[in-house]
Amino acid sequence: MASITKVSPLAPKGGFPTLPDIGGVRFSTVAAGVKYTGRTDVMLAEIAAGSAIAGAFTKSSTRSAPVLDCQSKLGRVEDDDKGFAFLVNSGNSNAFTGGVGTKAVEEICHATAQEMNLPASHIYTASTGVIGEPLPYEKITGMIGTLSQTLSPDGIEAAANAIMTTDTFAKGASATCEIGGVEVNVAGIAKGSGMIAPDMATMLVYIFTDAKISQLGLQDMVSRLNEGTFNSITVDSDTSTSDSLLVAATGVSGANAEENETFERTLGVVMKNLAHQVVRDGEGATKFVEIHVEGAIDNVDARKVAMSIANSPLVKTAIAGEDPNWGRVVMAVGKSGANADRDRLSIWFGDVLVAENGWVSPTYVEEDAAKHMKNEDLLIRVDLGLGAGHSTVWTCDLTHGYIEINADYRS
Amino acid sequence: MASITKVSPLAPKGGFPTLPDIGGVRFSTVAAGVKYTGRTDVMLAEIAAGSAIAGAFTKSSTRSAPVLDCQSKLGRVEDDDKGFAFLVNSGNSNAFTGGVGTKAVEEICHATAQEMNLPASHIYTASTGVIGEPLPYEKITGMIGTLSQTLSPDGIEAAANAIMTTDTFAKGASATCEIGGVEVNVAGIAKGSGMIAPDMATMLVYIFTDAKISQLGLQDMVSRLNEGTFNSITVDSDTSTSDSLLVAATGVSGANAEENETFERTLGVVMKNLAHQVVRDGEGATKFVEIHVEGAIDNVDARKVAMSIANSPLVKTAIAGEDPNWGRVVMAVGKSGANADRDRLSIWFGDVLVAENGWVSPTYVEEDAAKHMKNEDLLIRVDLGLGAGHSTVWTCDLTHGYIEINADYRS
Repeated sequence: MASITKVSPLAPKGGFPTLPDIGGVRFSTVAAGVKYTGRTDVMLAEIAAGSAIAGAFTKSSTRSAPVLDCQSKLGRVEDDDKGFAFLVNSGNSNAFTGGVGTKAVEEICHATAQEMNLPASHIYTASTGVIGEPLPYEKITGMIGTLSQTLSPDGIEAAANAIMTTDTFAKGASATCEIGGVEVNVAGIAKGSGMIAPDMATMLVYIFTDAKISQLGLQDMVSRLNEGTFNSITVDSDTSTSDSLLVAATGVSGANAEENETFERTLGVVMKNLAHQVVRDGEGATKFVEIHVEGAIDNVDARKVAMSIANSPLVKTAIAGEDPNWGRVVMAVGKSGANADRDRLSIWFGDVLVAENGWVSPTYVEEDAAKHMKNEDLLIRVDLGLGAGHSTVWTCDLTHGYIEINADYRS
Repeated sequence: MASITKVSPLAPKGGFPTLPDIGGVRFSTVAAGVKYTGRTDVMLAEIAAGSAIAGAFTKSSTRSAPVLDCQSKLGRVEDDDKGFAFLVNSGNSNAFTGGVGTKAVEEICHATAQEMNLPASHIYTASTGVIGEPLPYEKITGMIGTLSQTLSPDGIEAAANAIMTTDTFAKGASATCEIGGVEVNVAGIAKGSGMIAPDMATMLVYIFTDAKISQLGLQDMVSRLNEGTFNSITVDSDTSTSDSLLVAATGVSGANAEENETFERTLGVVMKNLAHQVVRDGEGATKFVEIHVEGAIDNVDARKVAMSIANSPLVKTAIAGEDPNWGRVVMAVGKSGANADRDRLSIWFGDVLVAENGWVSPTYVEEDAAKHMKNEDLLIRVDLGLGAGHSTVWTCDLTHGYIEINADYRS
């Protein structure tokens, strides 16, 4: 297995951020030896009674046992007086493991419920790592006593580290707002470095806030924000069988965030920040690219074009080569299936107008575009000239590093 | 620009095949210096009066001026006593070149029509090479006299060479059948090495037969056969703005191929052979992979799954690494959008059953699958266990060679 030790050149400068403690949430981690040695690989988050839990999951039809279990629990509260727990392991994804996969989830939930005196339906698990191998759940259940006895309000950075697989850096983000004079905090962690590499990578996101909000209200916000954040990133067009996002609102601040736009905006900042960090840790990535499409007949068409550009191997290799190859962007627009008129299309690299009216722009000087392509953070903007539909997605380039990580070893 | 001189390891052994002359068809080539030096870059095919011309073209909404022109001409016969011509250049694709692109096509058709005493609507052109640069059409029109004076019935191999861009070998195929005791020949050539690399590659296919068939009858066959041949291959999921297939039936053999299944099968053999050769010359390819999906609820779903596997960067890199990574196949099934049930899915690499009933097969020994992965020609077979829908597509692996060709130079 490839040893990926070099931190992505696109990692946020300054390392893991200082995140605020979230009232009503405590964390612990442990080295259970699920697969890795010499590092932590299980995290537990304990969430206070009365919290609201919302989430979003992969749409894959071959999703993992933990995902199916979480989906069945979302929105259910068996006992109002009891809290919740998130328990996540790295090293084994418990995906495509048949009946023993379901049993492993049940065993982990059962053991956690007993130890923490919670209903099993209040326990959300996730697993990330190799697929198709039975999860050695006894290694995890044997550690739940230790996990439950070492919970601490400031353990979120350790939790971010415990859930990493091929990630080259731990991902955290936070934001704060005021509702009715009360400070509300949102803090989250994520792991993921390809949309998926079933051997090791997947995207897991856990976000915590002390805002007070109903489960339905929180779920509405999360579903809405998810479209423009985690559902708007792509590394390699592949979709994990395990992608999971969970958001817990404890209400400990007392601030009422129900249908509150300020809170939604603040939650959105954290979600977008974490989504961008996943792209910045994209396997082999050397460029972070925003694709902005406007002028489509509607937002659905704009998104088709944006994703077609973001997922095109030829566009992504051109970016890796710092080549302002607008012909490949034209190609990706053309194959997207969206309404497009060659002669109304305009394309910019950064601020440089490269193509308009069905041909290269008369003002275009290749050196200008080539200069933009040398940046680490790039913008490709396309105006279809047809309507008001728009969409923004984020991706990275396709490099030798991606091939090295995914082809140059035998699992 | 990368110099790609090494012939693909997947090229047919024995070099360019010996193709039969097709009665009613003559070829010529010339070095017009459109972009390349020291090689031919224009081919002319003269096709006898009374021939039927059928075709298929890219569905891209940003297709090139020559494609739009060919599409407007297909099925039209302005003068029954006049033949047809195909004129193709390499080095410049005349795509995304605005009004001057349309003018270039008109000028080439006009000059060819004058020189050969044909209606301009009987001239089909194609261009392949860099996009966004005006086609220096005078270099081509200045050579049409030479081209028309050097036509020869046995010039098809030279024609196959003249239309190459990043291709590492010239592509030709033929097949023969008997209809009512009369021998009928089909011979064709193709170029293409990515589904597209707009700087240089695109797929162009020209097939000739001496069978007698109506335009509508031939078009029906070509459209039907195209689905299972050229529309069933993918190198990198990207679609050219210039992909063109033209089939000419001269009728010189006298054999009536109208609704004749033997002829359709024979034409299909040539089309599939050429389609496979395009994949075998896929940019950076080291493996030729057949993906066969069965047991889907219908053929549409089967095709979704097959294409999802064939286009997955993670599946393609696993193949490059000779890694029997069935987890990535499960992932690609899951993300396809087709109906699938994890627990009814079976997967084979070659003859080796790797997964069934939602988990790794109890009979699976990884060494067996790993041995299959060492072959140059691979088979991945998936049974969804739901219905009778099936689909077969062909692709290649994703290697450092692809990145080198598409990222490691500045155009």
